[in-house]
Amino acid sequence: MHTIGMAVMSADGCLTRHAEAGTGFASEADQRLFRETLGRCDCVVMGGAAFRAARARIVERLDEARLRVVLTRRPEDHRDDARPGRLEFRADAPAAVLRDLAVRGFQRCAVVGGARTLTDALGHGLLDELWLTVEPVLFGTGARLVDGAVEFPLDLQGVERLGADTVLLRYRPARRPRR
Amino acid sequence: MHTIGMAVMSADGCLTRHAEAGTGFASEADQRLFRETLGRCDCVVMGGAAFRAARARIVERLDEARLRVVLTRRPEDHRDDARPGRLEFRADAPAAVLRDLAVRGFQRCAVVGGARTLTDALGHGLLDELWLTVEPVLFGTGARLVDGAVEFPLDLQGVERLGADTVLLRYRPARRPRR
Repeated sequence: MHTIGMAVMSADGCLTRHAEAGTGFASEADQRLFRETLGRCDCVVMGGAAFRAARARIVERLDEARLRVVLTRRPEDHRDDARPGRLEFRADAPAAVLRDLAVRGFQRCAVVGGARTLTDALGHGLLDELWLTVEPVLFGTGARLVDGAVEFPLDLQGVERLGADTVLLRYRPARRPRR
Repeated sequence: MHTIGMAVMSADGCLTRHAEAGTGFASEADQRLFRETLGRCDCVVMGGAAFRAARARIVERLDEARLRVVLTRRPEDHRDDARPGRLEFRADAPAAVLRDLAVRGFQRCAVVGGARTLTDALGHGLLDELWLTVEPVLFGTGARLVDGAVEFPLDLQGVERLGADTVLLRYRPARRPRR
């Protein structure tokens, strides 16, 4: 399974505008990239906070072509939303969920946050790519991409202007030894 | 006076590797850009922490062609290092120091951090450009570019690959209204 981590951030690395949930600051260009990329994936993994921020839209647009897996400590709280093969809630560690999706035969997975999910996936070497959209704004405070003090080296695969002021940095987690 | 803010950060927006002072993680390509850019400036403004992290090198390489201004709450502690016109220590607010440098006739200034200095300069509209070098690594924790919860919109002026895995994002603080 080919797995792509995706996030949108301010130019100073804030994934949220201060303490606001969601990514309301994302440009049209980033939202288009996000939709198109998800459209080419057969599964999507997200944290509970990301799900709650976008729940109405996600539940309304469930699609047989794509499984959504939401990582949450309390899957039982979401029993009414769950649709096997389309929207599943799991309490397992992110790495275990990704390995299970590969075993089930999924081919292309997007991991769209949050920090705990991305950190666990990166730490277990389970991301093939990391795509970071950089929006033209500074927030100073906000959620971080990864949890805790880590050192994950990356290889730069590409740099693209997505829109007039928006940049996409495409990385691959590096196999080189950590410094 | 044309003023450029400069910083080097991890891909997740950390200006330091965790709590380590200094920018030891900066690539050769970034260090070269930094030296070349300072070589084209007639003054450089930096915070006390940045000065302390690089003191030996700075004091050794003082240059008549360039004034260094260090912002510190206790200029008197640095009396032995001070050299009028070459290395000055000031307790004034960053914006006041920048305005004073312009009055003194300096033409091109680099503001190389830290966060308090950059935030004050940005908040007063005193940066003409903001250059962010993005290194291919994730740290999770570290110093932020700016202090506190802000919203400074930017215009993207250019994107360059400085080296194989290092990107330079060149912004201009935007004149458009804040959202």
